[in-house]
Amino acid sequence: MKAAQRLLEYAHGRGVRACFANPGTSEMHLVAALDAVPGIRPILALFEGVATGAADGFGRMAQTPALTLLHLGPGLGNGLANLHNAKRARTPIVSLIGEHATYHLANDPPLASDIAALAGPVSDWLRTVPRAEDLVTAGAEAITAAEQLGPAALILPADVAWSDVEPDAPPPRSSPASTPDWTNTVDEAARALGANAVLFLGGRHLSARACAFAEAIAEKTGCKTLVETFPARIERGAAAAALSRLPYLSEMAAGSLSSASTIVLAGATNPVAFFALPGRPTRLAPDAATIVPYASPRDDIAAALEALAEAVGARVQPQRATRETPPAPDAEDAIDPMALARAIAATLPEDAIVSDESNTLGLFCFDACANAAAHDWLTLTGGSIGQGLPVATGAAVACPERRVVALQADGSALYTIQALWTQARENLNVTNVILNNGAYAILKLEMMRAGINAQTHAASELFDLQRPAIDFTQLAAGFGVHAERVVTQRALTAALNRSFARPGPSLIEVMFP
Amino acid sequence: MKAAQRLLEYAHGRGVRACFANPGTSEMHLVAALDAVPGIRPILALFEGVATGAADGFGRMAQTPALTLLHLGPGLGNGLANLHNAKRARTPIVSLIGEHATYHLANDPPLASDIAALAGPVSDWLRTVPRAEDLVTAGAEAITAAEQLGPAALILPADVAWSDVEPDAPPPRSSPASTPDWTNTVDEAARALGANAVLFLGGRHLSARACAFAEAIAEKTGCKTLVETFPARIERGAAAAALSRLPYLSEMAAGSLSSASTIVLAGATNPVAFFALPGRPTRLAPDAATIVPYASPRDDIAAALEALAEAVGARVQPQRATRETPPAPDAEDAIDPMALARAIAATLPEDAIVSDESNTLGLFCFDACANAAAHDWLTLTGGSIGQGLPVATGAAVACPERRVVALQADGSALYTIQALWTQARENLNVTNVILNNGAYAILKLEMMRAGINAQTHAASELFDLQRPAIDFTQLAAGFGVHAERVVTQRALTAALNRSFARPGPSLIEVMFP
Repeated sequence: MKAAQRLLEYAHGRGVRACFANPGTSEMHLVAALDAVPGIRPILALFEGVATGAADGFGRMAQTPALTLLHLGPGLGNGLANLHNAKRARTPIVSLIGEHATYHLANDPPLASDIAALAGPVSDWLRTVPRAEDLVTAGAEAITAAEQLGPAALILPADVAWSDVEPDAPPPRSSPASTPDWTNTVDEAARALGANAVLFLGGRHLSARACAFAEAIAEKTGCKTLVETFPARIERGAAAAALSRLPYLSEMAAGSLSSASTIVLAGATNPVAFFALPGRPTRLAPDAATIVPYASPRDDIAAALEALAEAVGARVQPQRATRETPPAPDAEDAIDPMALARAIAATLPEDAIVSDESNTLGLFCFDACANAAAHDWLTLTGGSIGQGLPVATGAAVACPERRVVALQADGSALYTIQALWTQARENLNVTNVILNNGAYAILKLEMMRAGINAQTHAASELFDLQRPAIDFTQLAAGFGVHAERVVTQRALTAALNRSFARPGPSLIEVMFP
Repeated sequence: MKAAQRLLEYAHGRGVRACFANPGTSEMHLVAALDAVPGIRPILALFEGVATGAADGFGRMAQTPALTLLHLGPGLGNGLANLHNAKRARTPIVSLIGEHATYHLANDPPLASDIAALAGPVSDWLRTVPRAEDLVTAGAEAITAAEQLGPAALILPADVAWSDVEPDAPPPRSSPASTPDWTNTVDEAARALGANAVLFLGGRHLSARACAFAEAIAEKTGCKTLVETFPARIERGAAAAALSRLPYLSEMAAGSLSSASTIVLAGATNPVAFFALPGRPTRLAPDAATIVPYASPRDDIAAALEALAEAVGARVQPQRATRETPPAPDAEDAIDPMALARAIAATLPEDAIVSDESNTLGLFCFDACANAAAHDWLTLTGGSIGQGLPVATGAAVACPERRVVALQADGSALYTIQALWTQARENLNVTNVILNNGAYAILKLEMMRAGINAQTHAASELFDLQRPAIDFTQLAAGFGVHAERVVTQRALTAALNRSFARPGPSLIEVMFP
């Protein structure tokens, strides 16, 4: 049996079900192995950034790793940006990166490069496997690392993949998970919570249960809760707790933490600015505030918060009252960010998944959807744009029975617009809501915050997307996805309802004046 | 004066004229500096792979470096694949990669990553500049390195860019170029050339003059000439020498070298296979052949070949006879690779530039164009697909008076399809000829060569591009580029002639049955 097949059989036995792929010549035996292991579904992406972003969306929802299959250093390079986001989300992913045959590397063929150097910054675990007999062991460690840490990279030379190995070697056991550190600090964290404390939440997965414990702790202790600016995944809506997020802009974020004397970290890290700008804060907590590390981002946050709730004597209400959602907008008026937020909140289907890369135009959507039907919200964890459509694609593969809504800014959408084709190919239930204002609006804002006049020639050349205007309905049609453009609030609401009722992908281009 | 502005003023003084950019918040002061230095043209790409590929196309044609402006590690990541190709082409490029402010890095903000690790494998020169007073010196070295070696990467922290520096510090001098090594080995190379020798050609730029010397050397000594498989740039057509390239498939390449007892390297490196496959050769020269290194890839190949011609007593004919080009196909038949090649060769405008990423379908185009009007031919030097449209874009910026023709396979086109928008925005004279066979056809071939049956389920899932079919005319329209689809030879010829007569970009989708 080929080593490649043995690896995939082992991975399948460990629960791997999907492989987001864009292979090349050096990965041919992995392609052949996918045929021999039909339980792992091969899903083609036209560009590797789609494959890695989809694996991120899959992993966030399934909480088990998908594979990516990438072609040498350049294929990995194309997938790096979304692996960066996945690493910041600590998403379980195992990337299989093809390498030239070991004996060919010394020839320095044209596609050779230092793959390990490229993979290092975006990997929580990394290994090049030089011998076929080590491949399954390495695969076992990669899967365990992905489960426990985040993205793992297995660099696989072609001659290792095509070597023959014993088919029935027993798969190695994975190492047991260790006891989390928070079990030692629960009393300290409990003592730290009070009226001037902030319970700062984050991590791989803020489940409804985790959020309910956080809310109960706040009610009991008088502390404030805040969710990190870009959570990997948070369950919301219906009866779930309506927690707020730390704002993106550093001065607003610092303001929302200004009264805190203590910050207890539960899955989140010490709050820092996205960017340094002249004269603006980069560490957002007040200088005098005490930081109390409790649960770390990879911990089971629900378990940690349950223990903390018990320590402070907080009780979760068995069922919170469901709140009212305002009706969807129905006017013939132009669409503005608030109308968008109301339309999404009012129409969101039960159990939807929202992939949010809406940047400036979607600013109000998260808060508005606190009262919507139950849903999961996935955000741009690493700040590397071009994540939204791929993550939506992978989430839809992981959860075929749920509707996925990609709230997607126009400029960012164009990084990985090829995701639409994979959605069409796999007939995924994704509604792509493209927010078109014809600009990198966030850069205009950031330039002013940097103390520079944004109305200059170079800024106009580099931030404007209207010369020529981009027609997303034509791009969608080119990739085989049904699309329509809306310019009024009424049309937006109707288009959302139509899309949610229609199986498979669609795209709504929302025009902002 | 801000250090960023001082850097760009210095670069402009060294001849830098274009900056292919996709900036973010950490690069705002570089954007502002572009305003203060209007001689450097800012050109926006919707995706960094377009920016780096365009800088490659620009540098190959202008033989001077353009800048790229990239946003942190992920922005660089998106541009890596085409920097890989540029490194293999030894193209002069200076990449300005923004970094977080030096004092913010310890906070590990979400977009932080190890930029130097990512840049290393694709850079011939690399430096992170921690102090504003060192920036111009580093910029001077980066430009010199780009000119002499290939892609240079300057990692620029935001606070360095926004620091004030003295405006009138004298720019450092660049180091003088050293005497090339080939001056010592010209006699040895001359002695090695004979009936069983191959003069193997490559390097940054095979000018018509270089090719004429090679042809004269072959006529005089009886040696065979071969150009490396993927030359960075070669001038052809009209009265230029019609040199052949080493075939891509390793068994064919080995066959074309099988009678060689000596291989003299003039700008090319020892010929090796693109990929190892079970049982196939990876070193293409016969084991017994003597390899004689003469000029290296970064040398002035024309000068080296002129010296070699003199040493063997070869004289270039003052003017070769112009050969006949067969007429363009005019039948209502379906289009096949030979008809495509004839159509391109017959219609190619004088002084055109061909960016060739045509893969399987364009196999005959290069040889067919040997008799076409004078032109430059640019190829996929590093084998990382997604180069063709960006390189065409940058070549058109460098040479606005010339027509650029992108011969582009469908699957590869979709990696960096966003290049079309930059062509539209800048009104570049590019004819994008998309060769649509609805498949990664080369992978079907490579899988068979790997000894595996390609007609399997997984291979079909991963190599086929027809479910759903991709409509390139709609993609082009979405990006603001005029497009038409052709299915007959007559329509192809007419569409090419129309496009060549029409200023600005257009796209011809060529359907293969």
